[in-house]
Amino acid sequence: MNWWKIVGGVLGGAVLLAAGLLIGHFAIPKNTEPIWAKEVSRDVDEEFIQEFMKEVDNKRIEDNLRRLTLKPHVATTAADEELVQVILSHWRDTNHGLDDAQEVRYDVLLSFPDEKIPNNVRVVNPEGSVTFTSRRAESEITQDQKDPDILQPFLAFAPNGTAKGKLVYANEGKVSDFQHLSEKINLTGTIAIVRYGGTGRVNKAINAAQYGVIGVIIYTDPKDINDGKSDPNQTYPYSWYMPPSGVERGSFKENFGDQLTPYYPAKNFTYRIKESEIKGLSPIPAQPIGFEDAKTLICNLQGPPAIDTWQGSLGCTYNLGPGFQPSSEFSSSDVEVNVYNKRTIKSSANVMGIIHGSVEPDRYVMYGNHRDSWVHGAIDPSSGTAVMMEITRVLGTKLKQGKWRPRRSIVFGSWGAEEFGLVGSTEFAEEYYSKLKDRTVAYINVDISVFANASLRAQGTAPAQGVIFTASKQVKTPQGTTVYENWKSKYNRTSPQYGLIPQIGTLGSGSDYAPFLHYLGITCMDIAYTYDRGVTSARIYPAYHTAFDTFDYASKFIDPGFTSHQMVGRTAGNVLLRLSDSLILPLGVRDYVETLEDYYNKAEQNFQANLNSKNISLAPLKSAVERYKKACETLEETIKNLKEMQEAPLKIRMINDQLMLLERAFINHLAFPDKLYYSHVIWASRSSGVATFPGLADTYLQATASNSQHDWDMVHHQLTVAIYAVESAASTLELVTKI
Amino acid sequence: MNWWKIVGGVLGGAVLLAAGLLIGHFAIPKNTEPIWAKEVSRDVDEEFIQEFMKEVDNKRIEDNLRRLTLKPHVATTAADEELVQVILSHWRDTNHGLDDAQEVRYDVLLSFPDEKIPNNVRVVNPEGSVTFTSRRAESEITQDQKDPDILQPFLAFAPNGTAKGKLVYANEGKVSDFQHLSEKINLTGTIAIVRYGGTGRVNKAINAAQYGVIGVIIYTDPKDINDGKSDPNQTYPYSWYMPPSGVERGSFKENFGDQLTPYYPAKNFTYRIKESEIKGLSPIPAQPIGFEDAKTLICNLQGPPAIDTWQGSLGCTYNLGPGFQPSSEFSSSDVEVNVYNKRTIKSSANVMGIIHGSVEPDRYVMYGNHRDSWVHGAIDPSSGTAVMMEITRVLGTKLKQGKWRPRRSIVFGSWGAEEFGLVGSTEFAEEYYSKLKDRTVAYINVDISVFANASLRAQGTAPAQGVIFTASKQVKTPQGTTVYENWKSKYNRTSPQYGLIPQIGTLGSGSDYAPFLHYLGITCMDIAYTYDRGVTSARIYPAYHTAFDTFDYASKFIDPGFTSHQMVGRTAGNVLLRLSDSLILPLGVRDYVETLEDYYNKAEQNFQANLNSKNISLAPLKSAVERYKKACETLEETIKNLKEMQEAPLKIRMINDQLMLLERAFINHLAFPDKLYYSHVIWASRSSGVATFPGLADTYLQATASNSQHDWDMVHHQLTVAIYAVESAASTLELVTKI
Repeated sequence: MNWWKIVGGVLGGAVLLAAGLLIGHFAIPKNTEPIWAKEVSRDVDEEFIQEFMKEVDNKRIEDNLRRLTLKPHVATTAADEELVQVILSHWRDTNHGLDDAQEVRYDVLLSFPDEKIPNNVRVVNPEGSVTFTSRRAESEITQDQKDPDILQPFLAFAPNGTAKGKLVYANEGKVSDFQHLSEKINLTGTIAIVRYGGTGRVNKAINAAQYGVIGVIIYTDPKDINDGKSDPNQTYPYSWYMPPSGVERGSFKENFGDQLTPYYPAKNFTYRIKESEIKGLSPIPAQPIGFEDAKTLICNLQGPPAIDTWQGSLGCTYNLGPGFQPSSEFSSSDVEVNVYNKRTIKSSANVMGIIHGSVEPDRYVMYGNHRDSWVHGAIDPSSGTAVMMEITRVLGTKLKQGKWRPRRSIVFGSWGAEEFGLVGSTEFAEEYYSKLKDRTVAYINVDISVFANASLRAQGTAPAQGVIFTASKQVKTPQGTTVYENWKSKYNRTSPQYGLIPQIGTLGSGSDYAPFLHYLGITCMDIAYTYDRGVTSARIYPAYHTAFDTFDYASKFIDPGFTSHQMVGRTAGNVLLRLSDSLILPLGVRDYVETLEDYYNKAEQNFQANLNSKNISLAPLKSAVERYKKACETLEETIKNLKEMQEAPLKIRMINDQLMLLERAFINHLAFPDKLYYSHVIWASRSSGVATFPGLADTYLQATASNSQHDWDMVHHQLTVAIYAVESAASTLELVTKI
Repeated sequence: MNWWKIVGGVLGGAVLLAAGLLIGHFAIPKNTEPIWAKEVSRDVDEEFIQEFMKEVDNKRIEDNLRRLTLKPHVATTAADEELVQVILSHWRDTNHGLDDAQEVRYDVLLSFPDEKIPNNVRVVNPEGSVTFTSRRAESEITQDQKDPDILQPFLAFAPNGTAKGKLVYANEGKVSDFQHLSEKINLTGTIAIVRYGGTGRVNKAINAAQYGVIGVIIYTDPKDINDGKSDPNQTYPYSWYMPPSGVERGSFKENFGDQLTPYYPAKNFTYRIKESEIKGLSPIPAQPIGFEDAKTLICNLQGPPAIDTWQGSLGCTYNLGPGFQPSSEFSSSDVEVNVYNKRTIKSSANVMGIIHGSVEPDRYVMYGNHRDSWVHGAIDPSSGTAVMMEITRVLGTKLKQGKWRPRRSIVFGSWGAEEFGLVGSTEFAEEYYSKLKDRTVAYINVDISVFANASLRAQGTAPAQGVIFTASKQVKTPQGTTVYENWKSKYNRTSPQYGLIPQIGTLGSGSDYAPFLHYLGITCMDIAYTYDRGVTSARIYPAYHTAFDTFDYASKFIDPGFTSHQMVGRTAGNVLLRLSDSLILPLGVRDYVETLEDYYNKAEQNFQANLNSKNISLAPLKSAVERYKKACETLEETIKNLKEMQEAPLKIRMINDQLMLLERAFINHLAFPDKLYYSHVIWASRSSGVATFPGLADTYLQATASNSQHDWDMVHHQLTVAIYAVESAASTLELVTKI
């Protein structure tokens, strides 16, 4: 054999061996490789998000809205129950449904007007004759207002009774308003007419009663809702402005959730407190009226004229009363408020839908909106429900086609009885408190999805900011810019860290996120499209809670073409997918640093001098904030290192748990024993005007007023509560092996 | 080229290619296979557990105990600080230390006797002469009792003052005892002498004060502690019995943790309540004495003889008083209780040690014991610390040798100031509340590790039962049986599910597990060796909290050879390793079914008739228990299916989270607003004798006494609390995608 043949053979053999090695190693799947290994490290699919957004369809949203608004669907009425079935069948659809959908019911205390004896406001002359009665219903501008199922205007949970006395005008019914008024007029036994705005609905009556007022009338001033316009030719159906007969209905109580079962789900086994034990109700009758009726009352008042800031747009000088001008038709007359509401326990349904997570089914990304309305509720809440149904249709289709399954479970909620005070969502949060607090990544609320079609409006806690920014940068407006850029041009702030960015608002207790945020400590956000404040100063969209909040109104004046609905659907759905599918949760816990530093600075500026004189030091609060900041840096370092190497799924879960549970570290159920459900040390309700830790701000306000040692001790206690919360939050983010 | 050459070449090539394929596929590690894939699915290593147990050394435990008991080491004294350093350096040792060890300090309110003015009990005759003074110190039986650092007997936090009056004998100082006594004697202005036992230490004085008693003397009756023996020749140093001069010291307050900072860690930033705001203290002075002194007082009492069950073993008839027999040397004399304690804020250290988990570092298995004693504390607590140090030595050695690292992190705690009311552990639980509740798998407490050398004694919540059984079956006794079999022969019960098994006791608030169980809702257990009740009825080991609890006493009378210490170390260490290393957590959540069914049955038997008449139904409680049982079956099915296939690490984590968090579902911080720290709906403190849900039992007791509607409403409320807790627990165990 020639040497070259030997060399050739050896070389050839080596090549074959090498080929075998390569093929065997790379091309033949190894049995020992766990089947799940790839799945657990899959990150969010940007192409899928693009596809999702493309498929969110404005026409379908419009169709959804048309179906949802056929009838008034007040909580627990037949029309509400019909919508329960509409949503259930949508979520159980074999082509675009979810993995599972159920109705979950609670027996909750609601309040309705009596069909047979309508509430009213009357003027009664000294002889006992009735010379004026408020409208029983709004004017019949379209077929919609003729629907026999429209509930007459009322305030749910306002106590029954007849209150009769001289009328006074009390501006917005704030404590300061009654204080001012009482310096001029003896309010004992009077009836106060107040306009919406400035303070919570029921607080107007609670405040009034403290000054001796015995009945309250609430109306909507054209100044506040209609940019001053009150002429019927300028209002709906000719514009989006509220017609003169429009009346804002609403819940009339301070605390949310079923009033008889605080902290426990309203189930068959649940002990119910007595109605007399309910806290935060009005002690006096109250009734809402439209500005047409309000004008008749206010423009006939006698007494000194109200100060300039109290004047409205009814086209007359607002006098304070008490009573009517001698020259008017109502001379010497009294005003009567007659309320005949019925409180009753009703079965209210939430509809719950779920898409099972593939890798982490025990992590929930929640998305919800309420279903019940006051009348047809085209904007509130059906604009949100129409969007939610479109999001679930697109995702459900992908799911049923086997093209997608989220990493984490997605839970959708169509809440019942929100208008009566966040009832369905609160009962749900109570029933599943234990597992929701352990497993929920975030809650996305889209209630009113479009207030107006000018700009995105997002509210949320700090960790939600980043993902909303990311999503809104990917959504185009009809004008060709991005939702993000348009938003930034309309509502912005300068962030120490990021420079000029859109302004994210804070969450109060205005919609169903409240129990999730305040009681459970879940990162929450609320997403909508809203006004251009250069164009309107309306307090809210003018048809809010009236019989004019209809499909006709929405499609003509709020969002013709439904492109704003579509943008909200794309943005919120994008956020949802990032939260459900990202390998590392897109929760920007570092963004709490700005909140905390701002809170600290506010406390220092406003309180430090006085606190020093009481030997209470803010220094430990400052260190706590610094510790929090440092913990964020450590965590970011850990995440960066993770991304640079192939890492274990349990390391990723560890980090995700830190991110998910960060918001929970701010929860302290013992912090505010007098505030039902409010346990979030950063976001609890606050009376003080200083935007810092609410417990600290409110006790400080009290202590400076009383200057008692006990009250200063309470300031110190609340400072401890704040420091402890920030320290706990830092500890949650620090290395888990730090002791 | 010949055909055979071609064939040979092709064949040879094929062989080489095949060899390459095989080698490439099987022998060369694949880069795409994640390096963590094997590690995440590794289960507990039974060989390692055997090796660990083998290496737990009785001689080393003995050496540890000798070192720990050189001096009295009351919390925050120099000797306690020395032991902080001893443990720190043990845990930082380069050959057998942990990954990290730190001291963590809190500034807590403690109470000490005044060295210059000793507390005492005196007899003062009508002329004002002192005719008897209680011993200042225990008799000097060995060198140990001569130590100048021994604190004179006292009751920590007993209020200062001088109380003077006629002496009465009040048995154990229970409410029923004072009730009985007050029917015979006017107690106003009297001094009561009571024996230890029957009720909590401080409750004797709280009860006494309610009947007009102004001072309390507490002593240990030989009947209760010495099986009746009181002769110095029958007691230590001749036996384990308490010498006549022995005095049980102790904490004298109802609530645990630092008294000035409830719910918050006692740090520099923490607001401190006023001493006058502390709840659960004695309102009257109190002092403990030995039975030698007690005999002088009791055997001279006049008045009617006490009933039989009140008689003790002092060798005389116990009369009730008031005052002394006319024939005695104390005729007409008063008794005086003089207390001069000093309350002071001290810096107390916990020593924390950690072994970082390899796979799930964010899961903590905790093991702890306190470090501080009342005197030398050989049994209480150093027997536990000696064992803990040996466990960490063996594990630390393996760790430093690179032979082992646990799957989960192991956190060791040497708590400060337990004797003053679980202070160190409570402050730790408060400081890290947020992350401990999210991450802690279980807490193992080994305080007194050996009360006596007869049998294992374990207390714990239901999920701990199985792992303690497993461990104790693997530990041999010196007699050749297993710890488990020996235990079962001494303390057993018949379980509906398992038949005859050892009896696991319930956890009260007697040691450092209390904050972890009651406030955090962590599965807890307490492990020790204990008495043969056929041999002794001693209330506790007789040297408890006296100057005779020394190394000499422990090594001669409690555990000669230290083999019981060794068995406890092996059992507790085995449990620790199973909790830290098992793939699926060995927490038997199904074992709560027996607890819950038993609770339900007790409620039905004792309450149902009356509840029915008040329209309160127990049926929803029964369904809740059934739901819990069913949820356990579902979870067991999921676990079984998991074990049958190669499963994803995140599925295992999901199940482990359900198991870990089950106990947390029973926590309700709003359930018992008047009971500091008690939030566990199953295990909160209970006054009623009916062993069922404590809130239900206690409100029922109250309602049957008052028969007021309000009190029956509270029964209904507490029934709701119980049902809600069981429903929440079931929900935690059910399929995570169930909505």
